[in-house]
Amino acid sequence: MMARLSLNQWTTRHWTMDEAIEGCVREGIPAIGIWREHVQAYGLSTTVRHLREARLRVSSLCRGGFFTASDPAARREALADNRRAIDEAAQLGAPCLALVVGGLPAGDRDLPGARRRVIDALAELAPYAAAAGIRLALEPLHPMYCAERAVVSTLAQALGIAESFPVEHVGVIVDTFHVWWDPDVFTQIARAGARIASFQVSDWLVPVPQDLLLARGLMGDGIIDFPPLCRALIAAGYDGDIEVEIFNADLWSRPGHEIATAVVQRYIEHIGPWFKVTMREAPRP
Amino acid sequence: MMARLSLNQWTTRHWTMDEAIEGCVREGIPAIGIWREHVQAYGLSTTVRHLREARLRVSSLCRGGFFTASDPAARREALADNRRAIDEAAQLGAPCLALVVGGLPAGDRDLPGARRRVIDALAELAPYAAAAGIRLALEPLHPMYCAERAVVSTLAQALGIAESFPVEHVGVIVDTFHVWWDPDVFTQIARAGARIASFQVSDWLVPVPQDLLLARGLMGDGIIDFPPLCRALIAAGYDGDIEVEIFNADLWSRPGHEIATAVVQRYIEHIGPWFKVTMREAPRP
Repeated sequence: MMARLSLNQWTTRHWTMDEAIEGCVREGIPAIGIWREHVQAYGLSTTVRHLREARLRVSSLCRGGFFTASDPAARREALADNRRAIDEAAQLGAPCLALVVGGLPAGDRDLPGARRRVIDALAELAPYAAAAGIRLALEPLHPMYCAERAVVSTLAQALGIAESFPVEHVGVIVDTFHVWWDPDVFTQIARAGARIASFQVSDWLVPVPQDLLLARGLMGDGIIDFPPLCRALIAAGYDGDIEVEIFNADLWSRPGHEIATAVVQRYIEHIGPWFKVTMREAPRP
Repeated sequence: MMARLSLNQWTTRHWTMDEAIEGCVREGIPAIGIWREHVQAYGLSTTVRHLREARLRVSSLCRGGFFTASDPAARREALADNRRAIDEAAQLGAPCLALVVGGLPAGDRDLPGARRRVIDALAELAPYAAAAGIRLALEPLHPMYCAERAVVSTLAQALGIAESFPVEHVGVIVDTFHVWWDPDVFTQIARAGARIASFQVSDWLVPVPQDLLLARGLMGDGIIDFPPLCRALIAAGYDGDIEVEIFNADLWSRPGHEIATAVVQRYIEHIGPWFKVTMREAPRP
């Protein structure tokens, strides 16, 4: 039931890398979605060693992206940072690097221009990532984040970009929080097929919490109907891990082990039963 | 420059109907988008008479909709209320009734079901509206309102529904705040063509204000690039009024005449120059 569960470590944000790894082991969670901030604090080689000792699978590294700067220096630095992220992902044994593409630069209203820069950045990075064995995973974010976080807002749009690249080099992330509202979501999940690099789950709360960046809920606390989405992922052939990724200030105020326990319970209740059968063996660090 | 400007009266929410009509006259605003709440407070026949005396054009009546109740009694009442709204629109000489279709009923996760009920309600109401000479104007709302306000979230989706009905009976509303982020917006505006029943403008603020229902800004205060959207509306043949509709608590705290003056200024600065040429003569009350 938990064979494909991954704890995205931002869900237990206040846990150090050390605590998150040990927490996964204690809860029987077989995989973890890692954040660069935590890797940096714990050290890359220490993280790699600890993951190996814990026999914990890495489902993704979060996150690269932020490709939309129009200033040339800022743009170069963003690309350089993404290359470092790709290197880290390779060392960690992550199958993919999650990309949040970036919003409009401050004072800029040129949305098509920002979107072109995303495509240009991907074209620069894809060969580098491919050489490192890392798949770039383009994440459409909910349209309410378009101005500030990600000018890629729908699965259709993400696929339109990703499909210019070989399927094994550039994929997309399906995150229930970002895509549940989309009238086209089932069509696009089917279209995505082998492009799906990661499946992330959290719930949409009603009313929407005031801080939009911390508006996600545990599965079952909101209004997302998970079974049809899970069935669509299975029908599309997705056989990877399923990351529980929840940004929520109330949740974060609880002790990490309570959060992890809740993640396991809600996963078993709402998601796990749909994904009992197959499992992709991700590389281990 | 102002020939097609309409003040949506929720922009000057605290003005009574009387004050709004006089305010439009004073500012030289030739049209008004009327809200049922204000009509009710002032009286329908008094409103009709005052509008006629003021020679003010009505661009729309706001709002009908809220079609998603699954409880049969609530559903019957919603349909009855929409028929009353259609009657009011006819008496007011409004060319269309704006429809906010409704979100998920409390405790309900069946989004496709809610969407089916929208289509069913339109099928029931369209003949009634047609007989009254009122066009139903389906408004896609930003996806962040999908759960609580409108399960119709994109122009493509709204058109997919509207196109089952004669173009003169069911149209769509293009509201910059709701559609600016959509990678498909220009294609869909072109597709909409004569289906466009109303064009509404306001700006997307960064950062997004905490109250999502009051998150809109005056044109120029946010990040929406208006010229391409205006050009797309013109290319689509839209020749109706342009409503400035802004829900914003800070704006509402200012005296009504200040708001109206600001609306005129910002309209002339950002919108009016694109719409100098043609104007549809809407019926006068």
